Amino acid sequence: MFESAELGHEIDKATYRQQEAELREALLAAQLALKQRSEFPVIIVLAGMPSAGKGEIANLLTEWMDPRHISTLAFDASNDEEAARPPFWRFWRALPPKGNIGIVFGSWYADPLWHWNRKDSVQVERRIERIVRLEKLLTDDGALVLKFWLHLSKDRLKKRLKQLAADPRTAWRVTKDDKRVLKEYDGHSAHYQYLLTHTNQADSAWRVVEGWDANYRALSVGRQVLEAIQHHLARESVRQRRIEAAPLQPSIDGVRLLDTLKLGHALTKDAHKAKLELLQGRLNGLVRDPRFAKHAVVAVFEGMDAAGKGGAIRRVTAALDARQYRVVPIAAPSDEERAQPYLWRFWRHVPARGRLVIFDRSWYGRVLVERVEGFAAQAEWLRAYTEINDFEAQLDDAGVIVVKFWLAVSKDEQLARFKEREVVEWKRFKITDEDWRNREKWDDYIAAGSDMIERTSTPFAPWHLIGANNKYHARIQVLEALCDAIESRFQQKTSGKQKD
Amino acid sequence: MFESAELGHEIDKATYRQQEAELREALLAAQLALKQRSEFPVIIVLAGMPSAGKGEIANLLTEWMDPRHISTLAFDASNDEEAARPPFWRFWRALPPKGNIGIVFGSWYADPLWHWNRKDSVQVERRIERIVRLEKLLTDDGALVLKFWLHLSKDRLKKRLKQLAADPRTAWRVTKDDKRVLKEYDGHSAHYQYLLTHTNQADSAWRVVEGWDANYRALSVGRQVLEAIQHHLARESVRQRRIEAAPLQPSIDGVRLLDTLKLGHALTKDAHKAKLELLQGRLNGLVRDPRFAKHAVVAVFEGMDAAGKGGAIRRVTAALDARQYRVVPIAAPSDEERAQPYLWRFWRHVPARGRLVIFDRSWYGRVLVERVEGFAAQAEWLRAYTEINDFEAQLDDAGVIVVKFWLAVSKDEQLARFKEREVVEWKRFKITDEDWRNREKWDDYIAAGSDMIERTSTPFAPWHLIGANNKYHARIQVLEALCDAIESRFQQKTSGKQKD
Repeated sequence: MFESAELGHEIDKATYRQQEAELREALLAAQLALKQRSEFPVIIVLAGMPSAGKGEIANLLTEWMDPRHISTLAFDASNDEEAARPPFWRFWRALPPKGNIGIVFGSWYADPLWHWNRKDSVQVERRIERIVRLEKLLTDDGALVLKFWLHLSKDRLKKRLKQLAADPRTAWRVTKDDKRVLKEYDGHSAHYQYLLTHTNQADSAWRVVEGWDANYRALSVGRQVLEAIQHHLARESVRQRRIEAAPLQPSIDGVRLLDTLKLGHALTKDAHKAKLELLQGRLNGLVRDPRFAKHAVVAVFEGMDAAGKGGAIRRVTAALDARQYRVVPIAAPSDEERAQPYLWRFWRHVPARGRLVIFDRSWYGRVLVERVEGFAAQAEWLRAYTEINDFEAQLDDAGVIVVKFWLAVSKDEQLARFKEREVVEWKRFKITDEDWRNREKWDDYIAAGSDMIERTSTPFAPWHLIGANNKYHARIQVLEALCDAIESRFQQKTSGKQKD
Repeated sequence: MFESAELGHEIDKATYRQQEAELREALLAAQLALKQRSEFPVIIVLAGMPSAGKGEIANLLTEWMDPRHISTLAFDASNDEEAARPPFWRFWRALPPKGNIGIVFGSWYADPLWHWNRKDSVQVERRIERIVRLEKLLTDDGALVLKFWLHLSKDRLKKRLKQLAADPRTAWRVTKDDKRVLKEYDGHSAHYQYLLTHTNQADSAWRVVEGWDANYRALSVGRQVLEAIQHHLARESVRQRRIEAAPLQPSIDGVRLLDTLKLGHALTKDAHKAKLELLQGRLNGLVRDPRFAKHAVVAVFEGMDAAGKGGAIRRVTAALDARQYRVVPIAAPSDEERAQPYLWRFWRHVPARGRLVIFDRSWYGRVLVERVEGFAAQAEWLRAYTEINDFEAQLDDAGVIVVKFWLAVSKDEQLARFKEREVVEWKRFKITDEDWRNREKWDDYIAAGSDMIERTSTPFAPWHLIGANNKYHARIQVLEALCDAIESRFQQKTSGKQKD
């Protein structure tokens, strides 16, 4: 795949001058259109051989375009906020918002590129899978992902490093790693080709550009960026263009998972109190256990309105030190969140090791309320199942314990609770017209919830279905499941765990 | 000031039980009202003697209230993102949005509290000044700031530490520092009183509470929080309530600073080119100088529409590596930004050491467009001068080089540029109806700009007033001033610089 990029392409100065002027103007116009539409971001990934001009290309692109809406994201070693979270957290937090261009250095490819001599390792294979999924998520969401590989043949790399080393002003740019790549050029080249091949996707294909001649590489990258943006802008609709998720299986017998749960349980307030205190003590001990410092907890609470999520959450937090946890209530997204892929607003709350984050409603809104109310297009919520599973797998890989609760109440019980809320002074704020409207769509929510559980209950992040007509019973169940999840994770051999 | 908190207040269990129930309900109702109004945040600062119950109070408050809208912010040692920026950056980024409650541990008081034996040091005095200014900014912005000092007399501290040490389950809680406080109790106590006295302000006074009896301290803090929120909610308007900034001096002779600038300069395109390249080379060398790693640059561009800000910025960024800088264009705030004090949206972009951030328009919008258009109340923009100077002083203290440019064009020159923009295809996006409307208020902007420069041109962050009718001249001036500012900072004895 590097053949054409070893031919020694060159563009003379006069041709370059003339073409550059046109290109700049066109790029600026395309960037403006991109900003005015603000429907998708452009993510430009730069990778390649050492000294092949990645930095120069980034500088040129920002110089050609309006620097206010293009930014360069350079990822070096993880800082400590990043190191305490799943590896991709730092990429998520840096994503350019819709309408903007982000040039990414040391991107999600940096790690596997450097593990060139472990190309058959599980690490590299899993990282490739993660990359493919991340880029698919981004492009499915409408992002334009452009990946450039700046190439140098072995001879030209040798010549370039020699040139740089000879000049005292540039000698510092030649690193040990660069020399190693040259020394073991064929091995590296084979590994790079392997990586590029396996991360090629229809919507995020690699574009190999020879990096030898500055004029050639500048025009080549610049034109491809221009054409790609123009082409992407010309598409009719980003959101609806394709459904790439397996459709749901039609129900044959009409039996739905969430209709089959046992909802009522006998447990009195007094009987539950002793159990509750015991469990809270257990939970408190678990999160103060030294082993917890290597983990974190993400707890998700879903369920019909008035199912008792808030009450259950308070029984959990009562067992915790206020410095250790955060409760994140999910309502309408902010405008900064709307300018990003759907999962961005959850990624930003992923806890550091040693912490707990409790979501009162969550990313599952995509396949519940957004599906039922039509806020998300079918293509969007159908692929959300996969995206969510992948998100949770990444949490799990990083040691985060994911515990998901569906609190189930019967329709009658909900009605009783709604009515109580309308009567009791300090509960009145909890009941709104929207709750009554949602209730009318009870069946749709049962269907959506049943599909959700079937498609997102995974070994690493199972759903806990909790009959909650008796709220005392439900709270005990929640605490027990949470404690069990943490305890069983402590007992897993972490050595066998994939670090990604 | 600790006298009343050494009396041995105690509340018996029965009384506590009964009062707690009422208090909880009232707190929950107040919290709900706070959230529904979402006009101001509540910031609860917890400090005090060791083992006086700070953690317990935080846990109780979050248990009593709705945990979704209250969060605890614990600041331990700075992580590396924080350490690379001015000391208060980490407090700004953690501020609770309007409608929410934040409980702050290890707050802006942590440092000066530990420097107890240096109470006459410049460090402590300057930190006190910073604290006073931060809290004044927050309360002026409408925040309810509640500061609790949980106190223990010497005897009770001794007894408490003994109790904790005796029980193997709590012995770990007694640290070396705690023992030191006990050993040198009187010195610490005197220092604490000094600090508390000097950080007492009308709107953010310290509330000293005896920390001995858990029931007493819980009811005492809880009730004060309740009453303060209720009282704050009852106020009519947060924004307009008071003007606490010196009014502007009326002009006697009608001469305005910005009318007196020389705007036209002779410099041809060709003549400027050689100079420009030289200056860009100089700037590039300066930011790659090893000394720059201890600094950062914040460059601010202001001026009338079409004054050439964008063009000047591009000439600066052309000299820089794209990985090292960001350009931040300031337009309307996002809704997350609107839920915070005005300066929050600029604090979040403060560069780490070794980086540059260029603001295309800036926090000066407060005293320019927001003043002229009436978007900010008079009280708000009048106090902004002080808040801005303090913000820039903090940047300067942390080694950030602040360079501010006012690009000045004549009214005729602006008209010519507007007309050119309407004609040239790829410039058309740069001219909007708003630009024409702003032009009608030319005189108001000249007045506002003149006041701004008079009140915010400081030794550590001077304004550079640049005649920009000749854009070539302006670009040279900008680059020169930027280079000079960096160079002269390198030459300052950094050892004499206050670290805060």
